Amino acid sequence: MKPYKDLTKEELLELKGRLEQQYKEAQGKGLKLDMSRGKPGISQLDLSLPMLDVLTSKDEMTSSDGMDIRNYGVLDGIPEAKQLMAEMMETEPEHVVVFGNASLSIMFDTVSRAMLKGLLGETPWCKLDKVKFLCPVPGYDRHFAITEHFGIEMINIPLNSDGPDMDLVEKYVSEDPAVKGIWCVPKYANPTGISYSDEVVRRMAALKPAAKDFRIFWDNAYCIHHLYEDKQDHILDIVSECEKAGNPDMVFEFASTSKVSFSGAGVAAIATSKANIEDLKKTMTIQTIGYDKINQLRHVKFFKNRAGLDAHMMKHAALMRPKFQAVLDVLNEELGGLEIGSWIEPRGGYFISFNAMEGCAKSIVAKCKEAGVVMTGAGATFPYGKDPKDSNIRIAPSFPEPEEMREAAKLFALCVKMASVDKLLEAM
Amino acid sequence: MKPYKDLTKEELLELKGRLEQQYKEAQGKGLKLDMSRGKPGISQLDLSLPMLDVLTSKDEMTSSDGMDIRNYGVLDGIPEAKQLMAEMMETEPEHVVVFGNASLSIMFDTVSRAMLKGLLGETPWCKLDKVKFLCPVPGYDRHFAITEHFGIEMINIPLNSDGPDMDLVEKYVSEDPAVKGIWCVPKYANPTGISYSDEVVRRMAALKPAAKDFRIFWDNAYCIHHLYEDKQDHILDIVSECEKAGNPDMVFEFASTSKVSFSGAGVAAIATSKANIEDLKKTMTIQTIGYDKINQLRHVKFFKNRAGLDAHMMKHAALMRPKFQAVLDVLNEELGGLEIGSWIEPRGGYFISFNAMEGCAKSIVAKCKEAGVVMTGAGATFPYGKDPKDSNIRIAPSFPEPEEMREAAKLFALCVKMASVDKLLEAM
Repeated sequence: MKPYKDLTKEELLELKGRLEQQYKEAQGKGLKLDMSRGKPGISQLDLSLPMLDVLTSKDEMTSSDGMDIRNYGVLDGIPEAKQLMAEMMETEPEHVVVFGNASLSIMFDTVSRAMLKGLLGETPWCKLDKVKFLCPVPGYDRHFAITEHFGIEMINIPLNSDGPDMDLVEKYVSEDPAVKGIWCVPKYANPTGISYSDEVVRRMAALKPAAKDFRIFWDNAYCIHHLYEDKQDHILDIVSECEKAGNPDMVFEFASTSKVSFSGAGVAAIATSKANIEDLKKTMTIQTIGYDKINQLRHVKFFKNRAGLDAHMMKHAALMRPKFQAVLDVLNEELGGLEIGSWIEPRGGYFISFNAMEGCAKSIVAKCKEAGVVMTGAGATFPYGKDPKDSNIRIAPSFPEPEEMREAAKLFALCVKMASVDKLLEAM
Repeated sequence: MKPYKDLTKEELLELKGRLEQQYKEAQGKGLKLDMSRGKPGISQLDLSLPMLDVLTSKDEMTSSDGMDIRNYGVLDGIPEAKQLMAEMMETEPEHVVVFGNASLSIMFDTVSRAMLKGLLGETPWCKLDKVKFLCPVPGYDRHFAITEHFGIEMINIPLNSDGPDMDLVEKYVSEDPAVKGIWCVPKYANPTGISYSDEVVRRMAALKPAAKDFRIFWDNAYCIHHLYEDKQDHILDIVSECEKAGNPDMVFEFASTSKVSFSGAGVAAIATSKANIEDLKKTMTIQTIGYDKINQLRHVKFFKNRAGLDAHMMKHAALMRPKFQAVLDVLNEELGGLEIGSWIEPRGGYFISFNAMEGCAKSIVAKCKEAGVVMTGAGATFPYGKDPKDSNIRIAPSFPEPEEMREAAKLFALCVKMASVDKLLEAM
């Protein structure tokens, strides 16, 4: 295929006519698909259904330390749930606190606590004139929503194929005491799918922050969410890397089983230093008497250990691969060689990140919507919803069936073509 | 029995000797009982075990509006859970938002939100020089812990047998714009067991606050927690009373099934005005994608409706009554006529509130502990843990078995006698 940029105006106009015709036909199909959120598909959820049978009225209701899991008590999780979540995060149970159903809530609560009470005795952030977070972009919209909610200024940091631009991160963190945090999705990043290299993780752990209460918010959301058995990324354990670098308290790691068992009815956890755990427990003990220990034990009985989790996630992968492949195939078939967009083939996670020609993303997403395919809003992968280049689009292939994904991806590719042609014509 | 106050010094000294002998014998029994928290007993928890069988891998996984309860989505609770919690709170589902496992967390989050974001557009409380809460006393220590955590000044309000001293409440609320809230446990109050009269509820709903963002924190924790089938308290619905009085946004009502199904694995809810719901959802949507809908449906399938809840709670009552009776019997037998303490016979809830002679509570609790019976700390029922009269002790009879309760209550009565004798001798 000839790159669009090499087409003459006449060729572009002729192409525009054809594309518009195709778009009309596509609209006529009455598509109704949602690729906006990283929702597990129905078959993935079905995989965890037997979990509902592992803890019945006939079963023992005690955790390994003899606690009645039905009653009050146990602030930080039953021992076996700590063990399971530690194995998932590749850390030790003494670093782990198990919470309720959502790691997002733990992140929110952690920022909220820093705002109102401060971290390890430092000044509460709400008392400061300015608090800033570094935000590798493109990134996860719900992270940015939390920092925006609390009035924290967000600074874009380019996310490269091996992680955030660490020169820039080091500069900001070491020079500006108002920089209190950085949002990271270190493995199969949302949305680009990249994983941080060992060097990036080590540089992250070795940061020398101007602010004593600077924290890495390490959202290891996709730690075991591989797409392949043979091609898997592996990242270093940030908790021990921070320890080694003499920064044991500098990281909060988050993970959950939301995309392992049931979204919304999973188990979430934090991994951090003992000092941070003692500090956060001071607030936890005011906020709750304890989280759902029955659901914790249910998860342990069903998954047993890391091997059980991994085996389960390979079943997920088998369901996810054809959906990702459908999108990638269509992108290659339809857009290959046209030089109007680029994308990464991820080895895990929930997304395919697409970079359109500058100034085209909003138009593409709007066109998709008009023809019945809902994408994540353009700009959503940037703080304040503002993609400076209006280029990045997050594709979430997990929920629709593969055949639907093909249809949706074809429409998407068509919309990319249309927006690109318009942009090129505009520039002539 | 002769009142202790009428005893001569010699009689008191002789009594002291005998009591000390009895205490030594009691210590020799090696008691190990915990009456410190309102924990359901094992038999109560057993009543809900069949709930673990109502939602298995064979069952439908959709809520009444067709949502897949296993996936993401539904911020405010599945419709049937809203209905159930509305019936429990005697309000309408449109006033209800269903959360996770603990109403304490909703209360914490509600105060936290008021602190950082403000309520319905008013100034965030953290920006104000002073924020005050009224605290009917004796009250619930975990309420006071939340307000203390956020640096809110607490003002003691006497709790009478029909509710808080409303003259005082009206005065503070109407005159001081720094007064932003009041903690209430309106039914079978923690710890006194009293319920608010209709007049008190109506006066509460008709408050004319100096602060626009004054809120009643109405913790209806024991709304269906009767001890008797025939002798039950009934309170007016605060949400509709506030509406009628032209103060629709003035109340947040809280409730949960923590002491109905499983403590820690229940379902909690808030009831409030539509404006407040819209306001709180703005924060909720940042904090979570949604709560555990599987557990919500599990509760609905098990309890079905208010009648189901009521029938279940009568089974609880049958288990609780003998425990309460054991304590009351011992108190009457051992302390009746001695004029060294008073107590209320509650019709519901989880506690018996005991008022010792002034200056005796700490000593009584310490003596109990030394002989193996752990009570709620003296002072815990007051803000900052400070009972100005050092008199109130909360007895939680729910967890031990009735026979153990008798033993524990006997020890308690003995310790009351010892402390009272010491106090009387001191004053001579």
